Amino acid sequence: MRRVMHDEQSDATRSDAHFLRAAIRLSEQGMQKGAGGPFGCVVVRNGAIVGQGHNEVLASNDPTAHAEVVAIRRASAACGDFRLADCTLYTSCEPCPMCLGAIHWARIPRVVYAATRADAAAAGFDDDLLYREFALPLERRSLRLEPLLRAEAAPILRAWSQLPQRVPY
Amino acid sequence: MRRVMHDEQSDATRSDAHFLRAAIRLSEQGMQKGAGGPFGCVVVRNGAIVGQGHNEVLASNDPTAHAEVVAIRRASAACGDFRLADCTLYTSCEPCPMCLGAIHWARIPRVVYAATRADAAAAGFDDDLLYREFALPLERRSLRLEPLLRAEAAPILRAWSQLPQRVPY
Repeated sequence: MRRVMHDEQSDATRSDAHFLRAAIRLSEQGMQKGAGGPFGCVVVRNGAIVGQGHNEVLASNDPTAHAEVVAIRRASAACGDFRLADCTLYTSCEPCPMCLGAIHWARIPRVVYAATRADAAAAGFDDDLLYREFALPLERRSLRLEPLLRAEAAPILRAWSQLPQRVPY
Repeated sequence: MRRVMHDEQSDATRSDAHFLRAAIRLSEQGMQKGAGGPFGCVVVRNGAIVGQGHNEVLASNDPTAHAEVVAIRRASAACGDFRLADCTLYTSCEPCPMCLGAIHWARIPRVVYAATRADAAAAGFDDDLLYREFALPLERRSLRLEPLLRAEAAPILRAWSQLPQRVPY
């Protein structure tokens, strides 16, 4: 007997797999072009890709050009909005902390990823080191972070919060 | 009597204050132009600014265009290298986790900042929320992060690690 009930769960999973495979294909293409590490990403809104990319750190000499950042930038440009609150991000590998931050600032609520941070670490990428750094208190991190001149900068932030025409974000 | 001994500590502090004030000026200029939030940054190598910028999130519809990311991108482009290991980054406000990630990937070893994350939070920026999110285990975060198809992506990472011509980064 044919199954006639609409199976929403399976549809959603098939759709997720479809877009995630697009991200995985981009990861392979970027690696083959020598653009950067083997990472790919697509941003989807209403069932359509609105931004995509692969890692371009080497090709563009840009340490921030991770696949997720590239795809988010393009999606925001295409949508004319830095907020992508109705989008899902599909990435070939669990995002690093920089990319998680970018996802947060873009207000993307949902991420589907394939390979894990452990897979990335095994391939020589130190996402895992970065996750450990972020878990440490500031004074124990390898990055030196030094405060200075707070009294000269804090008033500018206060001025911002009082601007009548400011766009909150 | 004149003090003739060379005071290296004071020279370093004066130099830090000089570059940090340049970053603070950029934070005010960006706000006045309406480019984005009141944040500015300069990247310095050998006593010279090699990249600078202010927040451009609103002007460019790019959620990743924080002052630090903008300045790092420009410094990397100017130096022709995604590694800025001999640079210091001066920023008008303590970096958010996305920017800390960018600083890490750029291999910048030292950051001098003025306003704090608490000052940013008081002005309506949720850096502090993001820091709290990052401290939570994945399953308790507000961002949904879902694994899928690991077996299809992990082999591509392994292939990368075996490429003879790969550039480690």
